[in-house]
Amino acid sequence: MSKIDISDAGSAIGVFDSGVGGLTVVKEIFKVLPNEKVIYFGDTGRYPYGTRSPERVRSLALENSKMLLDFDVKLIIVACNTASSVALDYLVDALPIPVVGVVKPGAYAAARTTRNGKIGIIGTTATIESKSYERELTSLNPQIECVERACPLFVAIAEEGWTVGPIARMISETYLADLRLSGIDTLILGCTHYPLLRSVISETVGQNVRLVDSAEATVKEVQRLLENSDALRPVDKAPVHRFIVSDAEERFRVVGERFLERPIDMVQRMIIGESL
Amino acid sequence: MSKIDISDAGSAIGVFDSGVGGLTVVKEIFKVLPNEKVIYFGDTGRYPYGTRSPERVRSLALENSKMLLDFDVKLIIVACNTASSVALDYLVDALPIPVVGVVKPGAYAAARTTRNGKIGIIGTTATIESKSYERELTSLNPQIECVERACPLFVAIAEEGWTVGPIARMISETYLADLRLSGIDTLILGCTHYPLLRSVISETVGQNVRLVDSAEATVKEVQRLLENSDALRPVDKAPVHRFIVSDAEERFRVVGERFLERPIDMVQRMIIGESL
Repeated sequence: MSKIDISDAGSAIGVFDSGVGGLTVVKEIFKVLPNEKVIYFGDTGRYPYGTRSPERVRSLALENSKMLLDFDVKLIIVACNTASSVALDYLVDALPIPVVGVVKPGAYAAARTTRNGKIGIIGTTATIESKSYERELTSLNPQIECVERACPLFVAIAEEGWTVGPIARMISETYLADLRLSGIDTLILGCTHYPLLRSVISETVGQNVRLVDSAEATVKEVQRLLENSDALRPVDKAPVHRFIVSDAEERFRVVGERFLERPIDMVQRMIIGESL
Repeated sequence: MSKIDISDAGSAIGVFDSGVGGLTVVKEIFKVLPNEKVIYFGDTGRYPYGTRSPERVRSLALENSKMLLDFDVKLIIVACNTASSVALDYLVDALPIPVVGVVKPGAYAAARTTRNGKIGIIGTTATIESKSYERELTSLNPQIECVERACPLFVAIAEEGWTVGPIARMISETYLADLRLSGIDTLILGCTHYPLLRSVISETVGQNVRLVDSAEATVKEVQRLLENSDALRPVDKAPVHRFIVSDAEERFRVVGERFLERPIDMVQRMIIGESL
């Protein structure tokens, strides 16, 4: 992986996702690295990635990264489990700056959390089918047993704002009731939308199962990288962040404020690839 | 609108949609016009259309149509409410063969169905915001009153196969409970996914509300057109259909079989526009 040039310490961290979900990672940056500038790109004109083919996701991810490079970012976070699962190595090879995905840090955190070696993984269909978390976990420790479950409707209800209440509970029960009986002691929330559903998921799988949020683990990894490269942003004035999307900026603002739990002043729309 | 040349009667009907939803129209063709050949194109590499700008949808719709023209289809059905709402007139002008959308036939059927002039319309956010059904209905009869409601989660639960049961019922109740009190006697299912949810929707709004399925109305219009042009396919041997997508053919096959309620032998993937 490329290193960050110290002279770039003042530059922003670039973050992209297929849509609004990656804002859970941004929220974590604001908490842990409050002095860093963030440029966020949500590819709302071409979402969702979760049901697309790996080749297609790779080409979208590369276009998004190049767009962020134009803003001179010092590091890119792929805040999308699908893109991290199928495109990360490809981006690491293709780009001149460090690229951090959400899968490796999430898997690492889960491997350190589990006591009994049984880890559950939930995510979109594409993430689960890619087996990316399982691969990372068993490379960390071949003894680890994985139980995986795709929960495609979780994204839709999180975006609709139905994160608590009987519909969320019933959908969670439908997907996850049998995980309660599987003996897992740790569950990876393998999709950036899922932290919004944390309480209902925890209720379903049982309070004794520890939930691992990839966003937290990813931002810790970024912090470590910046510290090791001496590339933390110098404290001079308060950082100014930018939010850019490829379509439907007003919807992004409204849903995004729910994810960030703070106001978003402005969302810009930019043309990328095929989307207008 | 162009007429069909009688010599083309043996050719296929071309159908396109942004994804899998348009298969409800194909299912209706199989029922009403079982002798017709169908070439279906699902633009899964570039869906969903609902969040895109009208200009972009027009250019996608034209590319899809040209692709179908290469197969010498005799008529094109735009089996997508968004594309029908914003691109139909444009396609009618641009193409040398007849083009039929789902909005006009649906609105026409609803206007003939209603007794009290109060019509409900449900669809995706984009379709409801375009007000295309309302425009068609009031041009047919300025006295008609419309009650519109976007139901974004319906697409997700239909694709997940959760078309009956407590989750579908509760979501339907959340979106539509107040329609029961609105005095409508007719409800347009303004999204090609919704016919799969017909029974739960009917339960919510009440048995006295007549549901109008655009797919049915659209295929009736196609039947009328083919009969008037003497262009019904001659009965010689059983028709062979083709299903083509721009991405993720296996997912299309699996979800598509739920929509068609019959097996799909093969789904081909083709490159269109900039999508892989």
